[in-house]
Amino acid sequence: MTAQASTINAQSQAFLDSASDLLGSKGLSRDPADIEPWLTDWRGRYSGRALALASPASTKEVAALLALCARHRVPVVPQGGNSGMVGGATPDASGAAILLSLRRMNAIREIDTDTGRAICEAGVILQTLHEAAEEAGMRFPLTLGGKGSATIGGLVSTNAGGTQVLRHGTMRAQVLGLEAVLADGSVFDALTALKKDNRGFDLKQLLIGSEGTLGIVTAASLRLLPAPRARATAWVGLSSITEARTLLRHMECDVGDCLEGFEVIPQHCLDSVLDHLPKARSPLSQEHAWHALIEMVHTEGDDHQLQSVMQESLVNASEKGIDFDAVLAANDRQADDFWLLRDSISAAERARGPAMQHDISVPVERMPEFILEASPALEREFSGARAVAFGHLGDGNVHFHVLAPEGATPGQWEVTEGKAISARVHDLVTRWGGSISAEHGIGQMKVDELGRLGDPVALAMMRAVKQALDPLGLLNPGKLVPPAHS
Amino acid sequence: MTAQASTINAQSQAFLDSASDLLGSKGLSRDPADIEPWLTDWRGRYSGRALALASPASTKEVAALLALCARHRVPVVPQGGNSGMVGGATPDASGAAILLSLRRMNAIREIDTDTGRAICEAGVILQTLHEAAEEAGMRFPLTLGGKGSATIGGLVSTNAGGTQVLRHGTMRAQVLGLEAVLADGSVFDALTALKKDNRGFDLKQLLIGSEGTLGIVTAASLRLLPAPRARATAWVGLSSITEARTLLRHMECDVGDCLEGFEVIPQHCLDSVLDHLPKARSPLSQEHAWHALIEMVHTEGDDHQLQSVMQESLVNASEKGIDFDAVLAANDRQADDFWLLRDSISAAERARGPAMQHDISVPVERMPEFILEASPALEREFSGARAVAFGHLGDGNVHFHVLAPEGATPGQWEVTEGKAISARVHDLVTRWGGSISAEHGIGQMKVDELGRLGDPVALAMMRAVKQALDPLGLLNPGKLVPPAHS
Repeated sequence: MTAQASTINAQSQAFLDSASDLLGSKGLSRDPADIEPWLTDWRGRYSGRALALASPASTKEVAALLALCARHRVPVVPQGGNSGMVGGATPDASGAAILLSLRRMNAIREIDTDTGRAICEAGVILQTLHEAAEEAGMRFPLTLGGKGSATIGGLVSTNAGGTQVLRHGTMRAQVLGLEAVLADGSVFDALTALKKDNRGFDLKQLLIGSEGTLGIVTAASLRLLPAPRARATAWVGLSSITEARTLLRHMECDVGDCLEGFEVIPQHCLDSVLDHLPKARSPLSQEHAWHALIEMVHTEGDDHQLQSVMQESLVNASEKGIDFDAVLAANDRQADDFWLLRDSISAAERARGPAMQHDISVPVERMPEFILEASPALEREFSGARAVAFGHLGDGNVHFHVLAPEGATPGQWEVTEGKAISARVHDLVTRWGGSISAEHGIGQMKVDELGRLGDPVALAMMRAVKQALDPLGLLNPGKLVPPAHS
Repeated sequence: MTAQASTINAQSQAFLDSASDLLGSKGLSRDPADIEPWLTDWRGRYSGRALALASPASTKEVAALLALCARHRVPVVPQGGNSGMVGGATPDASGAAILLSLRRMNAIREIDTDTGRAICEAGVILQTLHEAAEEAGMRFPLTLGGKGSATIGGLVSTNAGGTQVLRHGTMRAQVLGLEAVLADGSVFDALTALKKDNRGFDLKQLLIGSEGTLGIVTAASLRLLPAPRARATAWVGLSSITEARTLLRHMECDVGDCLEGFEVIPQHCLDSVLDHLPKARSPLSQEHAWHALIEMVHTEGDDHQLQSVMQESLVNASEKGIDFDAVLAANDRQADDFWLLRDSISAAERARGPAMQHDISVPVERMPEFILEASPALEREFSGARAVAFGHLGDGNVHFHVLAPEGATPGQWEVTEGKAISARVHDLVTRWGGSISAEHGIGQMKVDELGRLGDPVALAMMRAVKQALDPLGLLNPGKLVPPAHS
């Protein structure tokens, strides 16, 4: 830390003095004990350094700070819950940037049950919003594993997905209005929710998913839905992923208005989970090549009624000739047990050994063919590696993991063969018209791959827009936007 | 026309020769008989001139033409069905621009009932898509008055609205993928529909609603829904617009999944329509200050069942103390009669005399108060003028018309007092946090007003993005983006 302090020149010191005047001692810290925990991403893959940790308490303070940063040419790395998957909130090693935490801006400014709307500051934690909405008899219809730490600002900036996208869409679909601070410190205020507004480019859409490279999201107006009253959950065993897709299609037509989740899990993943969780049991007694976890939710009726609807739809599917075994969760506890199996896949696989994880998507209708072709192709090319795919079939978004061969050295395999495997997966996905980042974003992890595989026309547009809105290149540098000659 | 021809200098001639080589005689015309009909907007408010009419037959031809235009610095004014409301597709008087018609690109490339998707070229007429979807047992869930001429390219470029936005959203919500040609002739190809894709800025969103100022939409991948099987329509009489909003809220909670339309009409408008259509009758025998036209649509059951649901919901509303008279359409013919009354308001008002029409929105929950405050304020300020509001209450989008005092001179009143009235309406809407363009766009009609009233931060962002993606300023110049010192 003394080394870090010694790099502060007179210019930096002048900036820090001004920032300190602006934010006070609660708002600006140079104490390594305060800063250190936020310099590494939660999975420990990326680490960096920072000039200071800024924690402004209001949009006004963020605006003043960004104006100051622009004046002093100080880069800014925004951070919410530090629960991202691609190192998007971790500064680089130079220590030139300030780390801008939005966590102090954690007020829910308004919950309006009449209009179905919540206005949240960037630092509000997802679970806090869930609880506040529930208390008001409403529901915020997006959730994901990191809900206990992920913040609204981070979720908006990364256009987060999760397990309810099938019915409710990604974060983009939840954002009714937005407030953000731009690179020059001006405040873009589009918080007022208008259902129809054709006054030019929809700039809000540009900020959503831009990972802090075009502006810092400070607040969002979010849609709330009526609270669900009924839930039905089924675990289904199938002979193939193609059959799983056929069942999904059937249920979308049949009960599409209630279908919230359709997750697929291969037997291999289930086995890993059962090894990993000694108390867990497989919902079905027999083995199946594929399993599907299906959830329906409705705002009317009760669990029992919705379970009947689910059962009827499955009977219809069976009568149509779709072949499967199924068991319905009898109660919430059993449903939670089913979901625990799904949610434990990543941890179970980590326990088995090194793996390269890929968050990819292809058009929904092509997903089964993609898995059937890509998995053996990779296993052929990389001897001993094993490809497993699981996740959100209904969104065309499958988490495609490739496990290291037995005996591979953790820490070494990932950066050698693992890297080659990822490149190959990305090649395949691109050839299938898919995305190398379905829901985790680009951050620093995939920026080179985006530069390598992205459509040159889209990349040129991105660079032009970035240059236009952040001409000094101070907002989250090195993230998302591949440089021109990468 | 000889005057026009004489303005062609050697530079323009070289461009025209190359364009002619590129597009052939079907694709490029300088014949005034071909060009003339498209130089004035359909309402006859805006007129311009053009160097030539280009009608490319493919995306490749559009791309080659735009590259040529960039090389020769020739401005491009794209046009679909020429049915816009704000002069967005009419060139200026200079005659320097080519008029780029997308009407020849009218193929529906694909209708996929499995995935619920249609891929349409820009020139496909909305009604044609409706019919093709219906034939396939599906439905494209956006419609509007100009459906017989409006094209997909125009609808996407203007983020069109219409009467089903309440449930299905604007055009933005229908677009799954997009293909567009940029200012330098490069092709932005994001036609492949991915449900989840976080590879950087969502550039598609930037093009939707940009009125051809950032790129020329050549094709779109659009969502289709299952065809509706049941329809129920009610005409309701209410004592106030506030009571109408209360009823809307009730029905959104009660039958929100089926509620497609909630249009409000004041007695004054209904009277105008009944005068205008001698054969039409008021659905209710008594007069009411306000009327609401409510439509429900469902993919299951039949009309009779849905009518019962509608009736039950209205009974519930009545039991809650909401005060109204109601009549349900007994069949499709009667429902169509109800809609004819709604759809004839504009024509009926035109027949009464000059009027300034405003396509505005405010937050849905504030719409009643806005109408109650703005209408008398305007009538006080402009003696003899009469303010009437009708339209999409459920979207916070009301068409706010101000009728000229008796004896006003048509053609003169509009550009004098009428202009002052519009400025006043826009002032009021802006003060209420609303939009001076809810669904018609900005075009050339509102570009000065947007410059006057738009948020300076948003305007600066728009100009920066425009400069970044169209540095030569050749795409639909003078539209949408207010110049820096307007």
